[in-house]
Amino acid sequence: MLQGMGTTTPARRTGRRTGDSGTRDAILDAALALFAERGYDGASIRAIASAAGVDPALIRHFFGDKDTLFATVVADRTAIPGIVGRAIGGDPATAGRAVTDAYLRLWEAPATRPVLLALVRSAVTSERAAQMLREILLTHTAQADPDRARRATLAGTHLLGVAVARHVVHLPPIADLTHDELVDEVAPTIQRYLTGTHR
Amino acid sequence: MLQGMGTTTPARRTGRRTGDSGTRDAILDAALALFAERGYDGASIRAIASAAGVDPALIRHFFGDKDTLFATVVADRTAIPGIVGRAIGGDPATAGRAVTDAYLRLWEAPATRPVLLALVRSAVTSERAAQMLREILLTHTAQADPDRARRATLAGTHLLGVAVARHVVHLPPIADLTHDELVDEVAPTIQRYLTGTHR
Repeated sequence: MLQGMGTTTPARRTGRRTGDSGTRDAILDAALALFAERGYDGASIRAIASAAGVDPALIRHFFGDKDTLFATVVADRTAIPGIVGRAIGGDPATAGRAVTDAYLRLWEAPATRPVLLALVRSAVTSERAAQMLREILLTHTAQADPDRARRATLAGTHLLGVAVARHVVHLPPIADLTHDELVDEVAPTIQRYLTGTHR
Repeated sequence: MLQGMGTTTPARRTGRRTGDSGTRDAILDAALALFAERGYDGASIRAIASAAGVDPALIRHFFGDKDTLFATVVADRTAIPGIVGRAIGGDPATAGRAVTDAYLRLWEAPATRPVLLALVRSAVTSERAAQMLREILLTHTAQADPDRARRATLAGTHLLGVAVARHVVHLPPIADLTHDELVDEVAPTIQRYLTGTHR
């Protein structure tokens, strides 16, 4: 099911060997556009296949199902992992503020907001989407030592909850704060987790 | 749509006046049992009506839709709001640990875990369920001053994110910690939010 998830698919012995990565790219580009425009539920495999000019069976061949396709779009076709990763990897003295600010901006930006909304909704309702999200996050924390990975994940749970309260449930007063007010409230906690001074 | 949400429905001028609260109770009891057993998606209005011995139209009359019925079940038929409320309202010096411990136990207990899972899934995917969740939470924070309500909500976002990571996405290493280890990690942050020393 997860075949084709690597950067290169090995040439098969059947002789089919050209066009796989180009087709895979076209599917991911079409999927990103449709998920962002219509949301997770509104973007069908059939519509994505039509936009990419391929047969729907080819999408299932490459990605297995819609959840896996969606998670791959987030990992490979959005700036989200890179932006959060760079913020965490910056100056340790200010990483808490940097990652909080960068993460909340991703939720506010028209290009990434619908993708994040769809990501949260699919991960919470689909075990396969949750599994893909686990794999993405583990890839990004694999190089860290266990203590650091645990603290980064604790920080992540807080940021996830803040985004769900503000952008999904629209919960006051979190939803009514300005971006800067919310960063002021949350960043010190994220900083404590990242530096191990939370306990 | 939200009629019948109070503790008593005033007698109507049409002469229909008996049985409303008894019927409403029977629907809520049946809904709690079915939501806990089958989850949110698996418990249909029709099945709940059948278990309660009423016509499905009566459920729509009292509760509008399944999302609203579900949120009412959580608010009126589970110990969840009361347990969390008592933990927050206890000794201020240890409230952070008390509420973290009580909240995480609710996610681990067989009686409340499926209800919380269904609550998170419905609030994240349904605007009407999110609205009911907002109303429940506002009712429980309405007596607090704005600063305290903001801090309690920030603590709540962290607890929500921890539970989603641990019990919905099953994200390591959060999902692999023992209950006590996780309380040790998270409680100091919840305490800082509740006491206003987080910034």
